[in-house]
Amino acid sequence: MSVKIFYDLMSQPARSVLMFARANKIPYTPCPIAMRKSEHQSEEYAAVNPMKKIPAMQDGEFKLTESVSITKYLHEKFDCADHWFPKSLQQRSRVNEYLDWQHFNTRPRMTKVFLAEVIFPRMTGTPADPAALAPDIQRMEETLDNLEKHFLKDKPFLCGDDISIADLFGVNEVIQVEPCGYGTIDRRPKLKAWIGRVREHVQPEIFDDVCQLIYKLAKAKQKL
Amino acid sequence: MSVKIFYDLMSQPARSVLMFARANKIPYTPCPIAMRKSEHQSEEYAAVNPMKKIPAMQDGEFKLTESVSITKYLHEKFDCADHWFPKSLQQRSRVNEYLDWQHFNTRPRMTKVFLAEVIFPRMTGTPADPAALAPDIQRMEETLDNLEKHFLKDKPFLCGDDISIADLFGVNEVIQVEPCGYGTIDRRPKLKAWIGRVREHVQPEIFDDVCQLIYKLAKAKQKL
Ligand SMILES: N[C@@H](CCC(=O)N[C@@H](CS)C(=O)NCC(=O)O)C(=O)O
Ligand SMILES: N[C@@H](CCC(=O)N[C@@H](CS)C(=O)NCC(=O)O)C(=O)O
Repeated sequence: MSVKIFYDLMSQPARSVLMFARANKIPYTPCPIAMRKSEHQSEEYAAVNPMKKIPAMQDGEFKLTESVSITKYLHEKFDCADHWFPKSLQQRSRVNEYLDWQHFNTRPRMTKVFLAEVIFPRMTGTPADPAALAPDIQRMEETLDNLEKHFLKDKPFLCGDDISIADLFGVNEVIQVEPCGYGTIDRRPKLKAWIGRVREHVQPEIFDDVCQLIYKLAKAKQKL
Repeated sequence: MSVKIFYDLMSQPARSVLMFARANKIPYTPCPIAMRKSEHQSEEYAAVNPMKKIPAMQDGEFKLTESVSITKYLHEKFDCADHWFPKSLQQRSRVNEYLDWQHFNTRPRMTKVFLAEVIFPRMTGTPADPAALAPDIQRMEETLDNLEKHFLKDKPFLCGDDISIADLFGVNEVIQVEPCGYGTIDRRPKLKAWIGRVREHVQPEIFDDVCQLIYKLAKAKQKL
C-alpha cells in the first residue's frame, strides 16, 4: 500500500510535497482535496488532519501533517538523494534555517496578497482595493528582497550549489504571486533565473503539471 | 572556543534555545542582546544575523539563525539524549510536525496579545483597548485549544511519553501570556500540569532562571 498524499494544486505547501514526491519518483496515491468545494472541512478529511489544513500524508496507520515535516519524512523513508536534505550538519542546518524562516515570511506574505488580489474578488465580485493592499504589497516585496539578499545571494540555489527541499518551498510560495499580474518575478531577474533552475532540476513537465492551476490563473488575469 | 548564543530573555525562541543548552550542559558563551536598547538593530549584530532577529548562534566561523534550526544543530553537534529529537523516523516526524505548526500558531498568536497587553502600554503609557484585543484573545484561546486537543492529548509531553525539543518551544510561547494577568494557564489544568512536567525535567532552577523576566513582568502586573 503506497503512501497517500492529500493535496490541492492551489496550495503552495501541497505543491512542494508533490513536486518532491514526483521529482524523486516516490510511489504515492494521489488524494485530491478540493478547497473550493470545502472538502478539507469534511469530517472524513478531519480523520486524516484534525486541523483541516492541506496537505497531509498517510503511510499505513501513520498520519502526518505539516508540509515540511511530510517532505522530510518522505526524503528519509524513500532514501532520496542527499542534496535534497544533506546529512552534513552545517549544510542541513542551512536548509532547516530557510524552512523555519519561510513559515513567517514568504508563506504568509505572498499568500496575503494572492488572497486579496485573486481569491476574494472571485468570491465577492469586488476587485481588490489598491490603497488597502499597498502595505501588504510592500511587506511582500521586502520578503522577496530578504530572500534574494540573505538566502539566494549569488548561489545557484537557496542553500548552496545544489537543489534542496528549501528551493521547492521557496519557488512554490514565490510563484503564487504570478496570478496577481504585477509582473513581480519579471522585475527580479535573479529570482526568475533561480525559478528556471529549479524547474529544470525538478523536470519541466513535472514542474509545469504541478503548477498548472497557477499558470491558468495567471493567464486568466492577462486576458482581463 | 565554545559556541556563542545570542539571546534576550524576553524572546520566547531565544529562551527555548537557552533552556535546551543549559538542560543538556552544552558549553556556550552567553551573548545577551538587549532588545529594549535596540541592540539587535546594531551593525555589529547584523554581522551575526543580517535579519536582525533574536536568537542567533555562532560556532567558529559558522553562523546560524532560526531558533528551531539552532536547537537541532546543538542537539546533533553535542550528541544530546535521543528523546529530545529522536532518531526513529515516526517519532522525529511528530516533533518536526509540532515545530513546523507552532511558527504560525502559538508563536504569533501568543506574541500578539503579549505585545498589545504588556509591551505597547509600557512604551506609550496607554493601556490596551479590550474591545480591539478581543479577536486576538479569541484566536489565542483557539490555538491553546488546538495545542491541548491535537498535540498534548492525554500524553505527558507534546510528542509522546518523554520530553522533546517541541515541549521547550511550546512552553516558552505559552508562558509568554502570564504577564497579561488573564490567568490563562490557571484556567487550563492540563496545560498547567504539562508546564510543571517540563519545568521538572529541565530542572526547576534552570527553568526559573531562564524565565526570570517573564515571572517579574507577571508579578508587576499583579501589583497594578
Ligand atoms: N503550515 C502548514 C500550512 C497549511 C495550510 O495553511 N494550508 C492551507 C492551504 S495552502 C489550507 O489548508 N487552508 C485552508 C483553511 O485554512 O481553511 C503546512 O505547511 O502544511
Ligand atoms: N522564527 C524566528 C523568530 C525570531 C524573532 O522573531 N525574534 C524576535 C524576538 S522574540 C525579534 O528578534 N524581534 C525583534 C524585531 O523583530 O525587531 C526564530 O524562531 O528564531
